Amino acid sequence: MADPQAVKTDARRHHDPEVRGFASDNYAGVHPEVLAAIALANGGHQVAYGEDDYTDHLQRVIHSHFGASAEAFPVFNGTGANVVALQALTDRWGSVICAESAHINVDEGGAPERMAGLKLLTVPTPDGKLTPELIDRQAWGWEDEHRAMPQVVSLAQNTELGTVYTPDEIRAICDHAHQHGMKVHLDGARIANAAASLDVPMRAFTNAAGVDVISYGGTKNGMLFGEAVVVLNPDAVRRMKHIRKMSMQLASKMRFVSVQLEALLAKDLWLRNARHANAMAQRLAEGVRAVDGVEILYPVQANAVFARLPHDVSERLQKRFRFYFWDEAAGDVRWMCSYDTTEDDVDGFLAALKEEMSR
Amino acid sequence: MADPQAVKTDARRHHDPEVRGFASDNYAGVHPEVLAAIALANGGHQVAYGEDDYTDHLQRVIHSHFGASAEAFPVFNGTGANVVALQALTDRWGSVICAESAHINVDEGGAPERMAGLKLLTVPTPDGKLTPELIDRQAWGWEDEHRAMPQVVSLAQNTELGTVYTPDEIRAICDHAHQHGMKVHLDGARIANAAASLDVPMRAFTNAAGVDVISYGGTKNGMLFGEAVVVLNPDAVRRMKHIRKMSMQLASKMRFVSVQLEALLAKDLWLRNARHANAMAQRLAEGVRAVDGVEILYPVQANAVFARLPHDVSERLQKRFRFYFWDEAAGDVRWMCSYDTTEDDVDGFLAALKEEMSR
Amino acid sequence: MADPQAVKTDARRHHDPEVRGFASDNYAGVHPEVLAAIALANGGHQVAYGEDDYTDHLQRVIHSHFGASAEAFPVFNGTGANVVALQALTDRWGSVICAESAHINVDEGGAPERMAGLKLLTVPTPDGKLTPELIDRQAWGWEDEHRAMPQVVSLAQNTELGTVYTPDEIRAICDHAHQHGMKVHLDGARIANAAASLDVPMRAFTNAAGVDVISYGGTKNGMLFGEAVVVLNPDAVRRMKHIRKMSMQLASKMRFVSVQLEALLAKDLWLRNARHANAMAQRLAEGVRAVDGVEILYPVQANAVFARLPHDVSERLQKRFRFYFWDEAAGDVRWMCSYDTTEDDVDGFLAALKEEMSR
Amino acid sequence: MADPQAVKTDARRHHDPEVRGFASDNYAGVHPEVLAAIALANGGHQVAYGEDDYTDHLQRVIHSHFGASAEAFPVFNGTGANVVALQALTDRWGSVICAESAHINVDEGGAPERMAGLKLLTVPTPDGKLTPELIDRQAWGWEDEHRAMPQVVSLAQNTELGTVYTPDEIRAICDHAHQHGMKVHLDGARIANAAASLDVPMRAFTNAAGVDVISYGGTKNGMLFGEAVVVLNPDAVRRMKHIRKMSMQLASKMRFVSVQLEALLAKDLWLRNARHANAMAQRLAEGVRAVDGVEILYPVQANAVFARLPHDVSERLQKRFRFYFWDEAAGDVRWMCSYDTTEDDVDGFLAALKEEMSR
Repeated sequence: MADPQAVKTDARRHHDPEVRGFASDNYAGVHPEVLAAIALANGGHQVAYGEDDYTDHLQRVIHSHFGASAEAFPVFNGTGANVVALQALTDRWGSVICAESAHINVDEGGAPERMAGLKLLTVPTPDGKLTPELIDRQAWGWEDEHRAMPQVVSLAQNTELGTVYTPDEIRAICDHAHQHGMKVHLDGARIANAAASLDVPMRAFTNAAGVDVISYGGTKNGMLFGEAVVVLNPDAVRRMKHIRKMSMQLASKMRFVSVQLEALLAKDLWLRNARHANAMAQRLAEGVRAVDGVEILYPVQANAVFARLPHDVSERLQKRFRFYFWDEAAGDVRWMCSYDTTEDDVDGFLAALKEEMSR
Repeated sequence: MADPQAVKTDARRHHDPEVRGFASDNYAGVHPEVLAAIALANGGHQVAYGEDDYTDHLQRVIHSHFGASAEAFPVFNGTGANVVALQALTDRWGSVICAESAHINVDEGGAPERMAGLKLLTVPTPDGKLTPELIDRQAWGWEDEHRAMPQVVSLAQNTELGTVYTPDEIRAICDHAHQHGMKVHLDGARIANAAASLDVPMRAFTNAAGVDVISYGGTKNGMLFGEAVVVLNPDAVRRMKHIRKMSMQLASKMRFVSVQLEALLAKDLWLRNARHANAMAQRLAEGVRAVDGVEILYPVQANAVFARLPHDVSERLQKRFRFYFWDEAAGDVRWMCSYDTTEDDVDGFLAALKEEMSR
Repeated sequence: MADPQAVKTDARRHHDPEVRGFASDNYAGVHPEVLAAIALANGGHQVAYGEDDYTDHLQRVIHSHFGASAEAFPVFNGTGANVVALQALTDRWGSVICAESAHINVDEGGAPERMAGLKLLTVPTPDGKLTPELIDRQAWGWEDEHRAMPQVVSLAQNTELGTVYTPDEIRAICDHAHQHGMKVHLDGARIANAAASLDVPMRAFTNAAGVDVISYGGTKNGMLFGEAVVVLNPDAVRRMKHIRKMSMQLASKMRFVSVQLEALLAKDLWLRNARHANAMAQRLAEGVRAVDGVEILYPVQANAVFARLPHDVSERLQKRFRFYFWDEAAGDVRWMCSYDTTEDDVDGFLAALKEEMSR
Repeated sequence: MADPQAVKTDARRHHDPEVRGFASDNYAGVHPEVLAAIALANGGHQVAYGEDDYTDHLQRVIHSHFGASAEAFPVFNGTGANVVALQALTDRWGSVICAESAHINVDEGGAPERMAGLKLLTVPTPDGKLTPELIDRQAWGWEDEHRAMPQVVSLAQNTELGTVYTPDEIRAICDHAHQHGMKVHLDGARIANAAASLDVPMRAFTNAAGVDVISYGGTKNGMLFGEAVVVLNPDAVRRMKHIRKMSMQLASKMRFVSVQLEALLAKDLWLRNARHANAMAQRLAEGVRAVDGVEILYPVQANAVFARLPHDVSERLQKRFRFYFWDEAAGDVRWMCSYDTTEDDVDGFLAALKEEMSR
């Protein structure tokens, strides 16, 4: 097979590959080892739609992380993973308890409601994390036909606010949910960062804690594209393949999603990438704490730093580095580190922050 | 940036890259030039969700093919492209007229109905092709609230049966649809093969013929993954971006879809790939015609050959080359050529066919 | 309680209660005995949403017709009954096999697709009636995720074309469906007319034949409004009440639906009404057969007569009596008799028909 | 036409028409004048599905209340009215801002999400009432495809908590919504009670205040069944009839919904009924205030009294009169008066309350 670097292509480079910012971990490209894996899986014919050898092998890799009863269903993106997983865990009349700040509630364009008819029963949280007590604000009325029946608790690890549940916290939630006959979905768009943060295997806060189904995040961990719905409890779902297909999430050339996941998960690339991103966030947070007038909003437990600072400073800073306002009225911003963020990137950003703060 | 070939990856090769069959053009991998384009777009940060420089440049490439008012909205896959396009073209109460054999009707797991609430008004066709007369079997009753209102005619070029509309045929359909206030969607999963077959620019049977929106197919034309909804008539749609997002078809690292499309469309890779696949189908059809007892079912106008032969012969042949039954009861099979099918592949297959027929 | 006739109301009469036509059995009003039943159930407070004494008693009435395991879930209208029933019988990924001419396919504004995401797999039929062989054209591919999974066969008794299945025909369909793991739904918008036509209890072609769930039709049988989903096989469904509520079909003052059904079903009003309507259709058909140039299109087995006659005759006739074209291009019309159609109505219509035919 | 009282029916009376409670205004039956109107509209044939003379006349009655541009679309029930109205006011990508306590959010089984794919953007309120400031917590991000686009503000008059907006309050909300390009829906399940409470025409807080579409409530105001979507601003909606039909809310014998609305609205029955229910609630509230240990929770502005009292007292009281817990954990209950609540009912209830409080 041809060497991609050596092959002439009609496409041209339109960007400067040396420019990075702090806007999102999905601004980063694909990790070179993942791209190499794609090249490896190329050539020849492989059965489409998931009957290929790479998707088959992926199951063994998944077993090594999540045990022999786990099964991965590769999909295209995070919203797709979540909507597929939540459909699989609910009946037509089921609803989903989640944090008000959950990505499925605030950042998916209403896909759960529109595509799957799912009602989300939301709970305000101080830091993006649910607890059994918070869940109880919505966990009631199963026999009442006037109420959308709560069938799933969906939590995110780490949360949309960059906070990380301990395994015990998740276990308490799962026990509570299961006692009420509800299942537990974990939105793991940044699951690797959570594991790196906790310094435990991913299994410790998923299978071992009682989670039924994961939306396993690959894109933000260095993949070109692709996530997987990982079913930990096979009894919790039915007809995953039908649901994935009808949800427009079935990749024809699935080998290329599966081999990327293999590249991450076969050994430790997933963890190297996550640890690096987390370390950069720590470096950034440490630097920020030294800057007067900038407040860090939540515990920095993964690869995100949420901060509050004067609005005009943020605006000037955004001209030099890309990042987002989180709550523009409040002056809150989010700075996100990625697997490819460098120490120089962080130090340069901190220098700029200090500069703009002192203007 | 690292050379993917040189980079060590933890993934391993699990398949023989020299084995190819005739099952589907999506059994093929990614064309080396497309993979090279991906590598080119890698590195650094690019705005996620479509605000990147590659998606921006893609518009210019699309303009060169479809005119300055065309706009491309990259998505993940063909079902996604179709469901996004059809939602954009309909109101909540709209329905879609299509051939009974259309992919949206028979091969998408009910995604149009389930995800978008779309009713398909189907018409049996002799060869997969609609005509104004066939459309009229469903094009009525716009004012009748008991009827799902026909708002779109969806045709596929080429059709699910490998047949190709002439530009005049499409123009007649579009004129007819527009006269009735309906819009026209073209499912172009294999649009390149159709253009190659007709030996005309794609524009000739799309813009120039009156098509409003295309599902532009990249995957079967040599991409790793990815298609695009190409809006030709901006007045026919609204809020494409919202619809794409809520339909779970918004890629975060969109630059990698866009650069693949650029690799195909910047010059002639799309056409080279399509011409080659079509030529292989012609070579195959010619060879098949020389085999007694095998009947070719439809005009071979693109990269598919549909044939009828004894069931046991097909079964033996399937042990040597992968391909699908199309109508198992009738003994109908589909042999599909791809951009990477070689003359040797075809000749080897024909030899095997003759062998099995004479057993 | 006040006598409704004696009570002064601010509403006025806007129509001539002596004018009747042949347009539809839902042009008729409410049967006096049914209205009397409503008055009987009025006064005082009754628990809303189905926990009332009338809905409770209704179950006993239903048991007398359909056996002790049957349960009735009153709803508002026929489309509602069908969509509730079909949701209860399917998973998210399920689809429904029905005749192309079925009411759910052609006359419900796409409600099954739009509200419930249901795909209908349709089969053309000569006379509106399915058979095991016709069902087999769509009954396949349960394991194929690209295909909307057939989970229900939906038939109508009588059919949209006025034809009636024998109990044996329905039993053959149910056996066939059940062998394939599918369930059977019977759209009984005119179930009473079918029973009257066959001169058997309704049980003979429902429970006894293997039907799982009925959409029981009351409106066309003399009710003010109201139908019921009657579950014959409790194992075939789950959470009927939740599905009814979320489908906007839960009546708050349900006692008034239930008591109407009781008025019909407690003794023989249902049958009297149906027999009368059927007899009027027979009288009409007999008269029509004596008119040269008018062709009766389907066997007249219930209360509908479908006929073909010159278009201009129909148009003139429509100025004297209301009725609908069924297929205007072909000149096909439908003449429908109701529980309140009189012999004079029929004879007057026949006289007018002869007159217009001879002009 | 037969006198319903004189007609023998096979149905029997199963309840005591002298027993009333305080559970809900939909526990009441149909007002005798409304039943008389139904009888008046009976007999003969009337075009089905809304082309009848009663629905035609209803428009004139509606004009007298809401002006000449208003149009009423009768439907079956309140959930249906709301889901039809909200679909008419939104695009596929639209969402709806409402109070967290809104009926559409907490009491419709998820119908808006499940049937119409609508996302509700909820706001906690102190008393069930929205304000421009509260709306602003969700009114943002129209151009952000990741956010479900807010297109409608839905308020209820009176609210689910029995509170009533002043015309000025509604005008401020409508102005605010319209400035942001959003439309305003008013859930008027108890609109008559609100008008009676404010002692203004309904127009004062609907048309005159800027409301675009009303769910007009008839059932709780004395109807047998039936509500209407009343479109005040014709430019705010499209294809109401198609939406009503596909939402399973199209009554075939619509004359009987329309004539009930006429009975209410032609003169002052709507107001008499509402005033009476409100007066009974005032009498009840006054009595309750005299009972030590029972706290009234919200301003009593319509026909509901929300109170907090010891849980065991409520339980004993419920054995004598039906009513509901509103928040069982907190000991909150709801006592609802109806058009048929008598002074004796109230006084008897108050006596029982005192008795149980003193045990």
